[in-house]
Amino acid sequence: MTRLIPFVTRSSRSEAEGWLASLNSALGPHAEIRLLADVSKEDRQASELAIVANPDPAELLLLPNLKWVQSLWAGIERMAAELPASDLKIVRLVDPKMAQTMSEAVLAWTLYLHRDMPAYARQQAERRWREHELKLPEDQTVTLLGLGHLGAAAAQRLKDNGFTVQGWSRSEKTLDGIRTFSGEAGLKQALTTTDIAVVLMPLTSETRGLVGKEALAALKPGASLINFARGPVIDDSALLEALDTGHVKHAVLDVFATEPLPADHRYWTHPSVTVLPHISAPTIKKTASELVKRNVTAFLNTGEIPAAIDRNRGY
Amino acid sequence: MTRLIPFVTRSSRSEAEGWLASLNSALGPHAEIRLLADVSKEDRQASELAIVANPDPAELLLLPNLKWVQSLWAGIERMAAELPASDLKIVRLVDPKMAQTMSEAVLAWTLYLHRDMPAYARQQAERRWREHELKLPEDQTVTLLGLGHLGAAAAQRLKDNGFTVQGWSRSEKTLDGIRTFSGEAGLKQALTTTDIAVVLMPLTSETRGLVGKEALAALKPGASLINFARGPVIDDSALLEALDTGHVKHAVLDVFATEPLPADHRYWTHPSVTVLPHISAPTIKKTASELVKRNVTAFLNTGEIPAAIDRNRGY
Ligand SMILES: NC(=O)c1ccc[n+]([C@@H]2O[C@H](COP(=O)([O-])OP(=O)(O)OC[C@H]3O[C@@H](n4cnc5c(N)ncnc54)[C@H](OP(=O)(O)O)[C@@H]3O)[C@@H](O)[C@H]2O)c1
Ligand SMILES: NC(=O)c1ccc[n+]([C@@H]2O[C@H](COP(=O)([O-])OP(=O)(O)OC[C@H]3O[C@@H](n4cnc5c(N)ncnc54)[C@H](OP(=O)(O)O)[C@@H]3O)[C@@H](O)[C@H]2O)c1
Repeated sequence: MTRLIPFVTRSSRSEAEGWLASLNSALGPHAEIRLLADVSKEDRQASELAIVANPDPAELLLLPNLKWVQSLWAGIERMAAELPASDLKIVRLVDPKMAQTMSEAVLAWTLYLHRDMPAYARQQAERRWREHELKLPEDQTVTLLGLGHLGAAAAQRLKDNGFTVQGWSRSEKTLDGIRTFSGEAGLKQALTTTDIAVVLMPLTSETRGLVGKEALAALKPGASLINFARGPVIDDSALLEALDTGHVKHAVLDVFATEPLPADHRYWTHPSVTVLPHISAPTIKKTASELVKRNVTAFLNTGEIPAAIDRNRGY
Repeated sequence: MTRLIPFVTRSSRSEAEGWLASLNSALGPHAEIRLLADVSKEDRQASELAIVANPDPAELLLLPNLKWVQSLWAGIERMAAELPASDLKIVRLVDPKMAQTMSEAVLAWTLYLHRDMPAYARQQAERRWREHELKLPEDQTVTLLGLGHLGAAAAQRLKDNGFTVQGWSRSEKTLDGIRTFSGEAGLKQALTTTDIAVVLMPLTSETRGLVGKEALAALKPGASLINFARGPVIDDSALLEALDTGHVKHAVLDVFATEPLPADHRYWTHPSVTVLPHISAPTIKKTASELVKRNVTAFLNTGEIPAAIDRNRGY
């Protein structure tokens, strides 16, 4: 008998279909993932597991026997915040391939800042030929704010490419050749010695607005900022002010409080801001489908539920 | 007795002075490097060695007993071409630190192309939010044209960062994990499988215009080009045509036939060209001065002249 697994998402049917094809082809004949709308009332009753991609929490309540959900994204803060407290386990996607892609993005835009690409682009527009002094990478301190699955991999990649790397996390960490900080005092200390700060923290009640007036003031003057995590971790008006005064030299922003970034937002036209359309580390359908298959099959065979987020911590 | 070593350059006295300070501080009290204009006729007669930075060949003829010159740059094609055939040995600067800087530049602008930064910059100018499909680095083939001191180091760095790397040189080479080609047939073969081509060959009578109509036509459609070597290796009108048709997607150019790039050159405003002001791998005064000191001291103590370029080959 083929097991039916509901797929719950706010995306359109046509967007969902690409995922359904990829997931079902990985899964093989013993189970089938189907859009919730196409699952009968009886099968909904029987569902202990759902696959989710930015789901409407109200829809999850239509599955009364749900034990866990497998998210297709790494970020699950919206679901974690909106779902009522319960025993429902939320499993996020932890894809080593995604950690590679994110490390590549962190390296690419760190080099973009390190090699002064924004300044050279401005000069080209003005037909100006002028060399800027080049720092050696070891004289450039890059700080990862968040040293989890993605942050730790990015830190290692930056180190392998010659940068001086430090990192900050909630709990204390030891990483080879990387200076680590934790706690509020640690944050200030890390920021004062930072040339490029990279935000790779989840969005939680604690991290919302964390990169605000105070943290930005603590940054070494002329430092730059990269946000590849979630928009609301940054206080936008504080950042715009710091960019206007030049205290922050440049910001590379891939994530925003509202996405797509509204057309009238100042970020689009600010000369010291690079706007990216949430592309730093897209979920890769192929490897993600393999991971989902592995988790789903293990559960169907043995009832084992993969490591889930801590609902209290929010990540 | 302090030995005097003439410094021959077309640069201004004020530009030269920065170099003189750095070189002399590395050299210590036993020798002194001085601008040619400040060297007496007697000391000119005695000079067997000169330090050069883009010298006027006529000025070198004022040193009748010259055995060798130490260049402060890696590229010496102008000197090699302009100096009359003679036994004068030309020693170029081979600085491992510069190979690191060049590898970093190759990686930085390869990632710039790989991560579609030119397209995202255009979209920002139009306030357009649109994701482009991301290739995995292993599905991106980067070809080094030139596998010498700089090209081989850059190839290794790209490989370490996940790209599929191949290279082309005059003589056959074996490099671990890198597909190598040589000769004319090898060039075509390499180009047809290339997504990003990086020029790192010296300028010689053989390489002048080498990246012309034919080579560009051989490139895989939609490939991009990076030139970090010398401007005249590329045939500019052939490249502009290939960019206009879209056969070449984007060009990152750091070096030009005339530098600074003339204000009316089409490259400045072409939407598919990134113009850089010869900044990919600047000579680093500090490490260069140490290398010059080592070569000069060895010669003063033992008469040993470092490995020089092959005047017939031109590099
Ligand atoms: N832009 C994109 O395309 C994209 C793609 C994927 C993911 N993301 C974002 O990247 C985020 C990070 O992903 P991940 O997989 O690395 O998450 P993770 O493994 O859960 O790591 C999170 C890191 O942040 C730290 N952290 C959490 N709360 C903190 C606080 N209040 N103060 C200080 N540090 C705190 C954690 O500290 P501890 O180590 O002490 O727990 C941990 O080091 C995701 O939440 C998602 O929002 C973005
Ligand atoms: N933009 C900048 O800031 C900057 C800075 C430094 C240097 N450069 C440029 O970079 C160039 C390369 O430097 P390098 O130190 O790597 O030089 P190198 O060690 O002499 O290597 C040159 C490479 O080019 C190959 N080559 C030469 N002529 C060729 C031909 N006709 N066909 C095919 N391959 C040919 C050589 O082949 P073999 O291995 O068979 O000899 C070798 O692999 C310099 O000449 C200079 O112009 C630019």
